[in-house]
Amino acid sequence: MSRFFSTKYNGLTPYTPGEQPKIDNLIKLNTNESPYPPSEKAFEEGKKAMNKLNLYSDPECKILHEKLSEILGVKSSQVLCTNGSDEILNFAFMAFCDKDHPIVFPDITYGFYPVFAELNNIPYEEIPLKDDFSIDPEDYIGINKNIVIANPNAPTGMCMPLSDIERIVKSNPDNIVIIDEAYVDFGGESAVCLIDKYDNLLVTQTFSKSRSFAGARLGFGVACDSIINDLNTIKYSTNPYNINMMTMFAGYGVLCDEEYTKKNIREIINTREYTVNELKDLGFSVLDSKTNFIFAKHCEKSGEYVYGKLREAGILVRHFDKDRIMDYNRITIGTMEDMKQMITVLKNII
Amino acid sequence: MSRFFSTKYNGLTPYTPGEQPKIDNLIKLNTNESPYPPSEKAFEEGKKAMNKLNLYSDPECKILHEKLSEILGVKSSQVLCTNGSDEILNFAFMAFCDKDHPIVFPDITYGFYPVFAELNNIPYEEIPLKDDFSIDPEDYIGINKNIVIANPNAPTGMCMPLSDIERIVKSNPDNIVIIDEAYVDFGGESAVCLIDKYDNLLVTQTFSKSRSFAGARLGFGVACDSIINDLNTIKYSTNPYNINMMTMFAGYGVLCDEEYTKKNIREIINTREYTVNELKDLGFSVLDSKTNFIFAKHCEKSGEYVYGKLREAGILVRHFDKDRIMDYNRITIGTMEDMKQMITVLKNII
Repeated sequence: MSRFFSTKYNGLTPYTPGEQPKIDNLIKLNTNESPYPPSEKAFEEGKKAMNKLNLYSDPECKILHEKLSEILGVKSSQVLCTNGSDEILNFAFMAFCDKDHPIVFPDITYGFYPVFAELNNIPYEEIPLKDDFSIDPEDYIGINKNIVIANPNAPTGMCMPLSDIERIVKSNPDNIVIIDEAYVDFGGESAVCLIDKYDNLLVTQTFSKSRSFAGARLGFGVACDSIINDLNTIKYSTNPYNINMMTMFAGYGVLCDEEYTKKNIREIINTREYTVNELKDLGFSVLDSKTNFIFAKHCEKSGEYVYGKLREAGILVRHFDKDRIMDYNRITIGTMEDMKQMITVLKNII
Repeated sequence: MSRFFSTKYNGLTPYTPGEQPKIDNLIKLNTNESPYPPSEKAFEEGKKAMNKLNLYSDPECKILHEKLSEILGVKSSQVLCTNGSDEILNFAFMAFCDKDHPIVFPDITYGFYPVFAELNNIPYEEIPLKDDFSIDPEDYIGINKNIVIANPNAPTGMCMPLSDIERIVKSNPDNIVIIDEAYVDFGGESAVCLIDKYDNLLVTQTFSKSRSFAGARLGFGVACDSIINDLNTIKYSTNPYNINMMTMFAGYGVLCDEEYTKKNIREIINTREYTVNELKDLGFSVLDSKTNFIFAKHCEKSGEYVYGKLREAGILVRHFDKDRIMDYNRITIGTMEDMKQMITVLKNII
């Protein structure tokens, strides 16, 4: 830290991204990436950007916003694309929270929420998950604070029914409810259909998981016009050209091939079901996943042991050294071949 | 504005980017883009990213930081790449300014500085340029506040000698001095050579201008390790994967072809000198530009008149409706052909 660093960040501990090691033949199941490359259409469209990179990208992201709104069944003024969904989440924390408008979220969830809160000097409260790791909607009904809920939640992978989400949104009309749907395409129910009904709802999603686009950085928010306007105010006060032209064009290509995305999702769900069954046979308990990862704990071996042994065998999963979940590992669903290899390794080490 | 928007942004007016109109055959001289596409090497390297976009980009930006530090003659730990230089500037405002650490900058300069200050609730003061539109270094000597100076300045295009920059940095040892060198490659003197000498200096640059990379979004900061560490703390608390993989790879390609960049810079400087001479013949006074744009005022016609007439003829320049400079237009240097066409149009309308 330099002697110039503002004391307002005294309590700030930055987010720790999952490792991105450069090891040959590593099976990388630690950051919930898709094992499949993006659609060929992404290449085709993305390449078109390459010879006009001397020009600024469209700050209004028209081609993306129009195509995306068509697919989501909303108006294009109800969508805002960002440099990954971390950016739209940070924009929302900035826009709607302050010292008088705290935010609440589960104690076990996406590790970036407390970082955004600390970064922006926002008071926050972490509400414990139930013993079964589910979110109790009653904890959030009429809480009268801003709320962010990942649905499905990470790293548990568990999902809340849309009816519960709606009850939470409805019962907190004077607060913003952010539903972070990074993983919704793998079995969750999206709240996008509620944005015309509730002016306090912001739904965020990402291209990183189901759309195989983690490296391109593309996320978005969906909400009523006035919420999107506020988020645009933050965007135009931060980084108006936040989406580069290659991501914009390639992202458009991704959206032109929804069939490919759906096929990959089906594949990942199949592989997940296979993996869950195999893990259970090996003595793991596995939370009910509606995502592209599973959260699993062995009946005898510690989470750290399993993590370490897999790593020795060239398989990287994510272990969180945190109370309540340190017996678990979060395992991204790779290809069927990846998962079979992992199961073989696990059979040997357990 | 929604009823949820935080009152902390009451005074905030977002930045207005230059127009990006979709008009055929428009000669676009309004946003200081390069008229030349990026190097072929950018294509080659950028394409390599396309089939691994399902994986996250390297949050440490190793290939870029290493190549860039080599070119700049600094350590790679003294460089931080961001999603355009707006992002590194905002990070710096966040990291080093707060209500007890105000910032000062010229009254006529990059319009984003007051926006960053307002966004982050930072008190700021605008120090008037001299009557000849130059920055008076004496205004900043020992001012004991954080400082941001664009050198060369925009929209004037005028440059301060490095010796004056050094005096300012040296005389404010307890404050951060940010030198924004977006345009330095077109004739300015960079302060990068001073970063080992002064721990309070941050130099920012961009790939958008001399490197033909505006659409790819790539900027960077250069400073001593502790300053870069602080900026990394902000980055990892905001958006750890801020640079997408295509920009990272293509940007590496750009850096592998410095000859091409230098050739384009020479070309732009030549075209600038031609344009300045022609404009002077037409009765314009033109500030001494060390950038890829010129700031020019006609002896009789108003800035708005010239702007409007050029626009009617399909040539877009940038006019600022602001005291002291409303008689001027900021004209980006395009190709020689673009500028000849503009001169022809100006001959007809004046």
